[in-house]
Parts: sequence; structure tokens; C-alpha cells
Amino acid sequence: MAETDLEDMESRTLEPNDRVQGEGEQFDEENRLKPEFVRQIRDALYDDIDDSVYDLVEPLHPADIADLLELLDRDERRDLASAITDLMSGEVIAELNDYVREDMIEALPPEAVADIVGQLETDDAVQLIEDLDIPDQLAILAEIEPGGRAAIENALAYPEESAGRLMQRELVAVPDSMSVGDLIDYLRNNDDLITDFWEIFVIDHRFHPVGTCQLSWILRTPRDIALTDVMKRDQTLIPVDMDQEEVALRFQKYALISAAVVDESGRLVGQLTVDDIVHIISEEAGEDALLMSGAGDGDINEPLRDAYSSRVRWLVANLGTAVVASAIIAFFGAAIEQLVALAVLMPIVASIGGNAGTQTMAVTVRAIAMNQLTRSNTKRILMRELKVALMNGATIAVLIGIATSLIFNPQLGGVIAAAMIINIIVSGMAGVMVPVAFERLDQDPAVASSVFVTMITDSMGFFAFLGLAVAVGLAG
Amino acid sequence: MAETDLEDMESRTLEPNDRVQGEGEQFDEENRLKPEFVRQIRDALYDDIDDSVYDLVEPLHPADIADLLELLDRDERRDLASAITDLMSGEVIAELNDYVREDMIEALPPEAVADIVGQLETDDAVQLIEDLDIPDQLAILAEIEPGGRAAIENALAYPEESAGRLMQRELVAVPDSMSVGDLIDYLRNNDDLITDFWEIFVIDHRFHPVGTCQLSWILRTPRDIALTDVMKRDQTLIPVDMDQEEVALRFQKYALISAAVVDESGRLVGQLTVDDIVHIISEEAGEDALLMSGAGDGDINEPLRDAYSSRVRWLVANLGTAVVASAIIAFFGAAIEQLVALAVLMPIVASIGGNAGTQTMAVTVRAIAMNQLTRSNTKRILMRELKVALMNGATIAVLIGIATSLIFNPQLGGVIAAAMIINIIVSGMAGVMVPVAFERLDQDPAVASSVFVTMITDSMGFFAFLGLAVAVGLAG
Repeated sequence: MAETDLEDMESRTLEPNDRVQGEGEQFDEENRLKPEFVRQIRDALYDDIDDSVYDLVEPLHPADIADLLELLDRDERRDLASAITDLMSGEVIAELNDYVREDMIEALPPEAVADIVGQLETDDAVQLIEDLDIPDQLAILAEIEPGGRAAIENALAYPEESAGRLMQRELVAVPDSMSVGDLIDYLRNNDDLITDFWEIFVIDHRFHPVGTCQLSWILRTPRDIALTDVMKRDQTLIPVDMDQEEVALRFQKYALISAAVVDESGRLVGQLTVDDIVHIISEEAGEDALLMSGAGDGDINEPLRDAYSSRVRWLVANLGTAVVASAIIAFFGAAIEQLVALAVLMPIVASIGGNAGTQTMAVTVRAIAMNQLTRSNTKRILMRELKVALMNGATIAVLIGIATSLIFNPQLGGVIAAAMIINIIVSGMAGVMVPVAFERLDQDPAVASSVFVTMITDSMGFFAFLGLAVAVGLAG
Repeated sequence: MAETDLEDMESRTLEPNDRVQGEGEQFDEENRLKPEFVRQIRDALYDDIDDSVYDLVEPLHPADIADLLELLDRDERRDLASAITDLMSGEVIAELNDYVREDMIEALPPEAVADIVGQLETDDAVQLIEDLDIPDQLAILAEIEPGGRAAIENALAYPEESAGRLMQRELVAVPDSMSVGDLIDYLRNNDDLITDFWEIFVIDHRFHPVGTCQLSWILRTPRDIALTDVMKRDQTLIPVDMDQEEVALRFQKYALISAAVVDESGRLVGQLTVDDIVHIISEEAGEDALLMSGAGDGDINEPLRDAYSSRVRWLVANLGTAVVASAIIAFFGAAIEQLVALAVLMPIVASIGGNAGTQTMAVTVRAIAMNQLTRSNTKRILMRELKVALMNGATIAVLIGIATSLIFNPQLGGVIAAAMIINIIVSGMAGVMVPVAFERLDQDPAVASSVFVTMITDSMGFFAFLGLAVAVGLAG
């Protein structure tokens, strides 16, 4: 084993060209695998030339191999995986989209999965196993050596999407009595330590973290200085049950590279590193657009039945709100019969109001997600949105009022202008207040806000326009 | 200076309690500053008790001081800043929201700004200056010492949102002839090196990066080993003109902690570190929801006139698409006059179609942003969305068809059911094809897609429903 490592190192040293990740003939200018390259792989798979497939894939970074697998169809994926078995490293598996990974894992026997799990760090192993059915999980766990199994079972005991699931158990923690020199000797002389780490955790006799030390500080400090004089005492400690969204915000806010995870009694039980958290930051920031439109997970690899069930539920809810709007129209049926121009113009009022509401809602949901909107500034933001709504409402009212006056008559123009101002103001207020209300009720504001905002803007649009028309005696 | 540092260190060592960031009485359970705490600050500012303000703010992390400033109103912000001048560190300024920072900076004289800029790393200094007007920029630059000024001017010469603007010039680069021991001695003996770094860049005689070395590898390797035998040769090199969106994707994909930035000739000119990139990852992932709704930057701190101008432009565009839909309704005016139920039901078809289109569009835009949707799998995704649309369409058609049959009559029920299926399928196809088309035309799919998708779903909803009603002889 040690010899192979050395040989490997030599060959790397002798390699004539540096390899730059994500560049080369396989990639387009945006770092995506070129369609021509993917076609080459497809053709080689089809012609069953495994050697040629292997040679094409071998130069890729594991993250790019994962991308390639995702781009292929389901059957092609499995063919590719068996053509490049020894390139299917733990890293590739860890980089795969959840749904694609699950689908591929389900096709493998438990022993093969256990083999893969054995190569992974705890956090990646947990990620691989957690979405499988319980019987599959048990079958795989039974094949894993006891030490690894215990660590995985331990992680699975924490709630989904919590720090306990995400953390690595592998870390470097040293007692607070050490000097810089002691630490360097300890790192050099212990072969069983992990090789990739960014910070050292300093702990007291109770195993509580008392400080963290960047490696650069250690490298720049004389050997005889005590670690407690180098370390930073201000720490961000992550409780083991903290939700991943919260973890992501802490990493972002305090610009963390790694953070200690502690259990209820304050003992150090694991670490989180930023390279694992960037995926979560991106996921959490991106999911609001999907949640607001009712697209569920919104993953293009999600199984069809899951995509259907999350989306149709949303459409049915919207059917409900559309029926409310229809009822309002039906109430003014007589007026419409008398003046069909009302039917022609009413969707404009509702549609622009809906857009204005969606704009405000998107801004509010984002501000809530980023912890920028709290009780301390809600009133100010509401006033701000009211001003924007007034300005928008006035502009749109002038435009539609003039056009309607010219095409139909000035009275109808006045009615639609007034209805537009009312609806845009109502939309702006709803766009702030609905998400804020959900947040105060401890509900995710991205999930349900748009159903309510749409219902308010549609109903109010029809009601204000038709109601005003009747009130001024245009019809009805 | 050195003495003060030492004293400072001692006092830190003697501090009885460790300070855990983001916890304590000032914070709620989601790491936001409590409204009561903000109110205390407000009261103290109002009563002009600067000492008490200072004592309240002093324990906070710079990122939390920045949060506090953002939560306050404009006047309160300036009062707070002058009550806590020596806590207003470069770190606080760097953590501030762009708009809030700009607003506060504009209130200061150039010399005061130059003082702040002097404390910052190049990337933070550039961030502070880049949004100011050119005359303000020049006035501030004139106050900065020549070395710092040159670095900032150099950075400002790169395009906005490029790697050249974001990068730090401060880094540790060493020649490829060094051994691990040489490197450690070099780090210990050079007092002018930066103190916070995560990787070492190894360069050749032309100043081209040939490899990177994690500090943990150096700490675990004997002194006599050559750096070239420890470093990783597979590198992710960032061209100085790369857009920040692309940079963020590379950091995410290849799980980078830091990356070398190179100029056109391949020379190392700076580095990017992940703590600066996490903000961009979050911003880029979150902005699609805002862009799709036409909310512009969507920042609650954006000046009113900017928020108005970006949002109203969008509403006017939507007014245009709503007029198209109205024209279709007008075309069927006679039918509506005859059968007012058509006017009552038509918004349902348009609204559900709009929702289905938005769902598909949100999924597609996200997949494009994450480089998951390329030419290699567009057809598969289109087929997938077609299937989801068929299932959704059938479900909604049954529900609305039955309800309409019961309330109105079976013929109208059949018409609305058929119109619903048509519109949901059209929406699904538009939701994929519109963003894909924009992306192929090198336009941001998040920006303009929803105007087009809404126009298609609204028009098609009205046209299919009213057209079918006329075709089967229900009215017209």
C-alpha cells in the first residue's frame, strides 16, 4: 500500500503537463461538458467499446464524471458505470445528484454498495444511505465493518438535514496544554490522522472546544508558544441538532472555513467544513424560487411521480383561489352582460396586480431567508413597499387609463385607472404582510405565500374594477 | 505596536468565558438580533448616551454590528456609527449591505473614507469604492498611500463582477525548488506575510502556478521532502476576467477553499478564497427568484427610485402581454355577451395555465443556472415535462370539468376540461423552451422568460377556452 502510494507520487511528479480542472477539449466556455463529447461517450457505449469509454472518461475530475452521468439517460448511466468501475470512486458518488445516486445505488447489490460506503467519509456515506428504504439501509449496514457502521448509525439517529447528519467525525482536536511545537510533532507522528483539514480544535479536559487555530497561524508561530496564546477564543459552535439552513447562514455570516459541532453537553462530536456547506448555501438560496412557484424540489432528476404529486397539489390549491375570483366575476355577471368591455379589460387589472404582488413577495421572502427582515424593521419595509406601490400604481394607471379612454370611453378609463391603483397598493401590502405572517407563525414563507397573494390580487383586481364600474353607473 | 498586541493576547488568555459567536441574550434562536436589543440601542441613541450604546455593541461580532446597522433607519445608522467609531472596523464595513454601505460612505469626507480603505484588504477596498461616482472615487483614491492606490486602481481596471475585482492580491507563493522545511522557515521568518491563508501556491520561474499545497499536507510531511512531491498538480486556475457567477460555480463544483487567479499569460496575480465566494454563491442562487418576478436587485435596502424603475419596467412589459390577452377576449366579445359564464370561467383556465408554466420555468431556470441542463439532455427534459404536464392537465381537467358540468352544463364542462389540458401542455412546453431559447441566445433565462411564458399561457388559455366554446356551438 505505502509503496503504491510512493509510485503514484513519482508518476505524478513526472507528469509532463499540469492538468487544469474544468478546461480542455471536453468543455465549453462555461465549464459544461460539450454535447460532442457526450455524444462520443454515447456512441462508444452503444458500440460496447469499454476501453475507449474508459480512455475518454479517465482524464475527468470526479465532479465532471458525476456531471456526465447526470447528463446520460438512465440505461446509459448504468452502462457507463460498469464500463468505468474503477473510476467510480467515492468522490464521484458523493458528487452525484441525490436522485441519480439513489437510482444507481438501487441497481447494485448491498455488498457492492457497502464497498462504496467503505471508501467514503461518514458525511458522504450518510448522504448515500439516508434516502434509501429502511430494509435497503439495513442490508447495506450489515455489510459494513463495525466501526464504520456505528458512526453511520449514530449519524442517522440525528434528524434529517441537521448538523449531526452533515458533520464529519474525522477531525483534529488537541488538549489546551499543548504548545505549537507539541502540536507539530503530534501531527507528524500520527499516521492515522486525517490528511485534509483546515483548522485545529483546541479542547479542555471535558472535551469542550475552547478555541480554534488556523493552520497558517501555527506555521507562522515559534514552537515554544502555547496553543492557547495562538488560538482564537471567539468560536462559532454548531449544536448537533441545528438545521442545515441555519448552519449555512452561520457559515456565510461569519465567513467560516470549518466549525466545531457540539452535543447537548457541549462536547466536541464532529466538524463541518465549508466545502460541504457551499452546496447547502446554494440549495437553500435557490429553493425559494421553486417553492414560491410550487415546483417542489424542482430537480430535473426527480422521479416523475414525485414531480407530479408536488406540482398538482399546488395547481389544485390555485384552482381553489381561481374559483374565489370566478365567484366575484359571477356576482357582477349582469354588468358584464351589459358591457362586454368589462370582460375584455378585467384580466389586465388582475394580471398586473398579480405581478406587482409577486415582485414584492419575492423581495420579502428573500429578505426573510437572509435574516434581513426582522421585527425591528418590518414597519420600515412595509412603508417602503407602500411607496413603491404608489409610484408603480400611478404609472400604470396613467398608461392604461389613457389607452382605455381612447379605445373605449373616458369614464371606463377612469374606472380602470382607479382599480389599478387600488390593486397595486393592495398587492404590495399583501406581498409583504403574507410572507411576514407565515414567518411569524413559524411556517416557511416561500411555500404558501404565493397562493394567498395570488388570491388577494386576483379577487381584489376583479372586485375593484367591476365594483367601481357598477358604482359609477357604467353597467349593472 | 508589538507590545499592545502582546498585552491584547494576554488579556484574551485570561478571559474567563469563551465567547460563542451568534449566541447570547442579544440573539433569538435563529441568530437574529432580538427586537428588544435593537430597541435598547434605539433608546440609548435617542437619549444620546453614547457610552451605553458602545457597551451594548462592543460584544458583537463585526458581522452582527453590520446587521444592526442594516436594521436601523438611515438617521439612526449615522448616529450609531458616530457613537461607536472605533468599533466601525474594516470588517464591519466589508460585511455591510452594498446599498447601506454606499449610503453611509457618501456621508463621510474623502479623508475618512480613505482611512477606512487603508484598513481593508484590496478586495474589500474595491468593493467599497466601486459603486461610488467617479469623482468620489478619485477624491478617495487621492488620499490613499501610493502602494494601496495602485492595487485598487489595478483592480478597478477589470470588468465589474470579474475575478480581477474580487481577488485578493495578498497570497503566499513560493518557487517550486523549495522543500517542506524551506517553506516552513520562510513562513516563520517573513514578518510581512499575510497571516490568514489556507493554501500555498507553488510557482515556476515564469510565475506560473504549477501546483497548490494544503497547509495540512505541509504540517504532516517531513522537512526534507520537496514541495513538488507534496503539492497537488491538478489545479483550478481562474482567469482574471472570469465572471463571478462562473467563479462561484467552479468553487462549488470542485469544492475549492482557495484558487489561483492568473492573467492572460498564465502568471499568478491573485487568489480567491471561499469565504469571499460564499456570498456570491448565495447571491447568484437567490437572484433568479427576483429576476423571474422582475424585482430587479430585490434588495430591501435598494434606493426607492431604483426599485421603482426596475419594477415598473417589468409591469409595463406585462401590461403589453395582458393587452394581447385582452385582444383575444375582445375577438370573442359576441360569444361572451351571449354566454356570460364564459367570462366567469375564463380566468380559471388562464390562471392555472400560468401557474403550471411558472412551475416548469422555475425548474428549467434553476437547472440551467446549475449547468445541469445542456444540449445533451434538453430533449429528455422536454419529454419529462411533457409527461408531467399531461398528468397535471388530466387531473385538473377532471376536477374543473366535473364542477362546471354540475354548476353550468356538461357541454361547458367538456369545453373547459379540454381547454385546461391544452393550456397546461402548452404551458409546460413554453416553461422549458422559452428559458432554453434565451440561454442559447446568450441571454439570462431568468430575466425575460416569465414575460413570454405568461403571454403564452394567458393568450392560449383564453383562446383555447373561448375558441372551443364557439367551435362546439355553445355561443358566438
